[in-house]
Amino acid sequence: MNGRHVDIKKVRIHDDFWSSKQELIRKEVLPYQWEILNDRVPEAAPSYCMHNFRAAGRLNKNRELMGSAFREPVYTFRGFEALPEDPSSPKEDEFYGFVFQDSDFSKWIEAVGYSLATHPDKELEAVADGAIDIVCEAQLPNGYLDTYYIINGMDRSFKDLRDHHELYCLGHLIEGAISYYDATGKDKLLKAACRFADYVDSVFGYEEGKIKGYPGHEIAEMALFKLYETTGEERYKKLAEYFIDERGQAPLYFDMEHPTPKGQPYKIDYYHQAHIPVREQTEAVGHAVRAVYLYSGMADMARISGDKRLLGACEKLWDSITREKMYITGGIGATHLGEAFSFPFDLPNDTDYAETCASIGLVFFARRMLQIKADRKYSDVMELALFNGILSGISLDGKSFFYVNPLEVIPEAVKKDERKWHIKPVRQKWFGCACCPPNLARLVASIGTYAYTTDEDTLYTHLYLGSEISHKDVDLRFESDIPNSGKVKVTAKAEGRSDLVLALRIPSWCGDVYEIRTSRDLASEVRDGYLYLKGFEGETTIDIEFSMKPLIVVADSKVTEDKGRCAVVRGPVVYCMEETDNGKSLRDIHIDPDTSFEEEVTTEFGIPAVVLKASGYRKISVSEGDYVSPLYRAYKTEESQDIKIRLIPYRLWANRGEGEMSVFIGL
Amino acid sequence: MNGRHVDIKKVRIHDDFWSSKQELIRKEVLPYQWEILNDRVPEAAPSYCMHNFRAAGRLNKNRELMGSAFREPVYTFRGFEALPEDPSSPKEDEFYGFVFQDSDFSKWIEAVGYSLATHPDKELEAVADGAIDIVCEAQLPNGYLDTYYIINGMDRSFKDLRDHHELYCLGHLIEGAISYYDATGKDKLLKAACRFADYVDSVFGYEEGKIKGYPGHEIAEMALFKLYETTGEERYKKLAEYFIDERGQAPLYFDMEHPTPKGQPYKIDYYHQAHIPVREQTEAVGHAVRAVYLYSGMADMARISGDKRLLGACEKLWDSITREKMYITGGIGATHLGEAFSFPFDLPNDTDYAETCASIGLVFFARRMLQIKADRKYSDVMELALFNGILSGISLDGKSFFYVNPLEVIPEAVKKDERKWHIKPVRQKWFGCACCPPNLARLVASIGTYAYTTDEDTLYTHLYLGSEISHKDVDLRFESDIPNSGKVKVTAKAEGRSDLVLALRIPSWCGDVYEIRTSRDLASEVRDGYLYLKGFEGETTIDIEFSMKPLIVVADSKVTEDKGRCAVVRGPVVYCMEETDNGKSLRDIHIDPDTSFEEEVTTEFGIPAVVLKASGYRKISVSEGDYVSPLYRAYKTEESQDIKIRLIPYRLWANRGEGEMSVFIGL
Repeated sequence: MNGRHVDIKKVRIHDDFWSSKQELIRKEVLPYQWEILNDRVPEAAPSYCMHNFRAAGRLNKNRELMGSAFREPVYTFRGFEALPEDPSSPKEDEFYGFVFQDSDFSKWIEAVGYSLATHPDKELEAVADGAIDIVCEAQLPNGYLDTYYIINGMDRSFKDLRDHHELYCLGHLIEGAISYYDATGKDKLLKAACRFADYVDSVFGYEEGKIKGYPGHEIAEMALFKLYETTGEERYKKLAEYFIDERGQAPLYFDMEHPTPKGQPYKIDYYHQAHIPVREQTEAVGHAVRAVYLYSGMADMARISGDKRLLGACEKLWDSITREKMYITGGIGATHLGEAFSFPFDLPNDTDYAETCASIGLVFFARRMLQIKADRKYSDVMELALFNGILSGISLDGKSFFYVNPLEVIPEAVKKDERKWHIKPVRQKWFGCACCPPNLARLVASIGTYAYTTDEDTLYTHLYLGSEISHKDVDLRFESDIPNSGKVKVTAKAEGRSDLVLALRIPSWCGDVYEIRTSRDLASEVRDGYLYLKGFEGETTIDIEFSMKPLIVVADSKVTEDKGRCAVVRGPVVYCMEETDNGKSLRDIHIDPDTSFEEEVTTEFGIPAVVLKASGYRKISVSEGDYVSPLYRAYKTEESQDIKIRLIPYRLWANRGEGEMSVFIGL
Repeated sequence: MNGRHVDIKKVRIHDDFWSSKQELIRKEVLPYQWEILNDRVPEAAPSYCMHNFRAAGRLNKNRELMGSAFREPVYTFRGFEALPEDPSSPKEDEFYGFVFQDSDFSKWIEAVGYSLATHPDKELEAVADGAIDIVCEAQLPNGYLDTYYIINGMDRSFKDLRDHHELYCLGHLIEGAISYYDATGKDKLLKAACRFADYVDSVFGYEEGKIKGYPGHEIAEMALFKLYETTGEERYKKLAEYFIDERGQAPLYFDMEHPTPKGQPYKIDYYHQAHIPVREQTEAVGHAVRAVYLYSGMADMARISGDKRLLGACEKLWDSITREKMYITGGIGATHLGEAFSFPFDLPNDTDYAETCASIGLVFFARRMLQIKADRKYSDVMELALFNGILSGISLDGKSFFYVNPLEVIPEAVKKDERKWHIKPVRQKWFGCACCPPNLARLVASIGTYAYTTDEDTLYTHLYLGSEISHKDVDLRFESDIPNSGKVKVTAKAEGRSDLVLALRIPSWCGDVYEIRTSRDLASEVRDGYLYLKGFEGETTIDIEFSMKPLIVVADSKVTEDKGRCAVVRGPVVYCMEETDNGKSLRDIHIDPDTSFEEEVTTEFGIPAVVLKASGYRKISVSEGDYVSPLYRAYKTEESQDIKIRLIPYRLWANRGEGEMSVFIGL
């Protein structure tokens, strides 16, 4: 199957839950982000992103004006982040920020495109057009477009593929340009992206004299496949295939580029998923965001080329992540050292990384696997990540963000223990390395394209959003109360009979317990967790209620950190305890496994959310007599005090001040 | 009170437990270590220690021969560890190894001295004399003696006090020299140490033109007090006092020496205990070994000078360590980041540092506090550290060592999780940075000097070792079955009446339950955990049996990592579970809190040791139905399987191959 992802313009969202998030992106995040890109937010670290494009543009102008009299800039490496000596007056012609700073614009314009596609906004479009003009002026005549080297000197360009993100910037530029083109029909940025891609194509490849390298931070792969599908140009597909095929082939490119210091314990090739050819990879390793971006590109290629071996690798890597390396929140990357995957079943709750971007990348990977095969093992994880580890990344007011999404926090520990300094007890304003907020923005703004895929006859429904979409001349209207309840209603209107097959995901979280009523008889069949319905004619209504009973869930016994503990879930929503509801020292709290759950719809977090109450107890050891020091005492007995445990959706934690939080609860 | 520590020659040890350890040091560790110092152990990293002394000696000879024609070496910083390009042929005139490599010799000669003091050995003494000749030839005419700078160029000497360990090397040299002098009466090395100390005294201090700094790695303080007490020279006391008084005074010396990069989160002054004046310090912070070495020097000064404020600081720091920051094994340093103390009650079991050297330093600190006041809060901890976190540092055959002493190990985790790479699942042959093995050697070889202190009338017994000692004309013979049982017998022989007061520690682990029978009536009084006996006349025998019932012990409830878990102890011995006795997945094991313990004397570890058996169970969650992924499943019930838990003394773990180990057990 070579399923299509749906055109964002074809999905109209009218869903209290998702519309409110999209509105937050449109009204808060995008304007704020534009101010950030222009260094106009006094309390946030300057981005220097638009500054760099302007500086590069000025340089190009001078080059043009002066011709051969122009003295090319000279490359001096200043680390991965260059900061002005005096932040209040950065020099006009200097590059500042991270080597990948250009991509901040690209992520912003991508989100802007998705937003404009569904919510036209002349003012925002004018701002975007102006930004695009600035960016395009930075492009070199040969198509190259990365301000770090344009400003610092082109002689070092593509000399540090492993760490210097030029191809990463290309990938984001392509994705941003396609989004804006799809939304507005304006192709200025798309043309610029194509010219950069053409330049890269002229420089990279198997042919004699070309660089035989590949991206240090993957994303160009999936972006080039998207560019191929947008433009129909075979060369973009070939370039993407080259990057994927060449990765990890001996001799390892990154080892030649950066000879590894002897005795260095850190296997850098693993970090970049470049240790062996991709078709031989079976375990998800290294930097989690890089990994899922690569796997997304691999899935694109497997779909487009029909390469079974590549598809097999994608399936194994999917299983490696979701069966051995994924938090119950859909978070991935169990260690902050390298922001990376740890070994199988190593899932510590209080030192994890679980970067928002990594879960977003997991959604990219899932959607691409769904285009190959509609199997709920992909869509269940996609939904889980969305409602938990991704939406936890943004505050209710859209103004602060988590980069790292821990499953357990004790504020004192994350402040005083250097091993946990990557974990923040409350969301932060903005980051110098601002990958997560814009990534969140582009995902939420385009959520409709993750809800559905299509093939010739079938409309696959992976996520239930209140939305409208048409397929095979049938207009479908979905109403959904997920995540608050399991109620979904579909109204399908056809002119006469239609060949439409409607595939509806039966989420695994309902335990296959659901009720369905259709206004007319439809042929039905269940396959891989999807209910396939056909026989649509005229107007048909389908009422479904998936069971959403709160569940006590335990991790595989190989997860040391979760032994004797459990999590509470309800539908796709994972719950957590917060100190503000349950007092300090959450580790003393145990749940009664036979508890019944009280459900309550609360509006304390803005839009309605279901909170739970469970029976439990606080267990404390009673001791008598010091053993050597008062720190250790002879155990006497155990006291327990009955309590009601209040549980809130994980995505909503840390919106009520700083305190302890834990997803896992003592059993 | 200004208690004396006893002369090592005055304690004769005849104790199966301790004699066997001392023999191990004498027969295995010291000869092996000498081979290491001379780079003659092919499987161990070369030390270059004696190489450096020889190189410096050659340089001095050339300097002497050539006079003004000699070209002084030029300093080039090569990091903290300099290694030859070709390890098989290091250059004759180059310095190799860590900046503090000289101290390896000093620790060795110190242990040699202690060993010779109680076990004369002509052959060993001849080797030592030869080594001393080599070392003394390296000394500069002005007394300076650190081969790193003698070889690399003296112009940089004392320019990096924070990191470059010259004063640390002085401290160890003094301690080694005193030990060898005490044992043999030979003063060649002692004179060299005095000359180096005199040179340092001429360079450091309050006076105009002198360096107003202090040691980056403390030890010189306590060494100089020992030198003062050995030689009677006031200037050594004053120099030590200067180092202690000046430490942490504003403006901070290390900040001036190494201006801190802006925004650097790591507070380097804390690491060095140099953030505030020592009398204001109330929390033990920073590098754990440095900390307890400093506190030992502070205790020396408080005792010698009678400085009450300083004593107050020592007491607060003691409490900070032992009530908030000490593992039940006597291990200190809860984080490998900086090999340092973490925040109060942060005592993770599987990522700790608990360096062998740090526990040894804690013993130094304890003995010095005991010289001020006999209070079992010091001696209990001293004994705990000895029998657990220190002796765990050495294998049964004396040939391999732990630097880091974890309380929980899962071999897969320590190999695959970079956050745990400092933890080894089995003892290692030797270390490039070889502080722990020689430190262990010097402590065990001098254990007799930790067992007793004296003042005018009183002999204080802090540790019970089979040993003989005389005080106030009374010959005392101690027989002890500790740690195997609580039986101790003391035979005191006096010529007629004696004023002797014998203070015997009543270990807190006996819960003040003990039986005592004396062959004659003695006046007795209990104070601060010591039983004071007087009225000795002729021969008196004292039979004591301290209760040594196994106990289930829990940590303070503020220790998050130990919640719902307990440790088993018996007397001063902390027990652990090993995989070889209890199977994999030790985290599933729970102890029955009402268990009776079966005690068994085993000889499987060489000398007899008591192992325990307790009733318990393995608890496993039974689940049904995947939640989103097979990694998470709906909880159904709990199964438990009754088992016998076998527990061995912690100090003996990892002597039977690699496997899981845990001190804490589920309750």
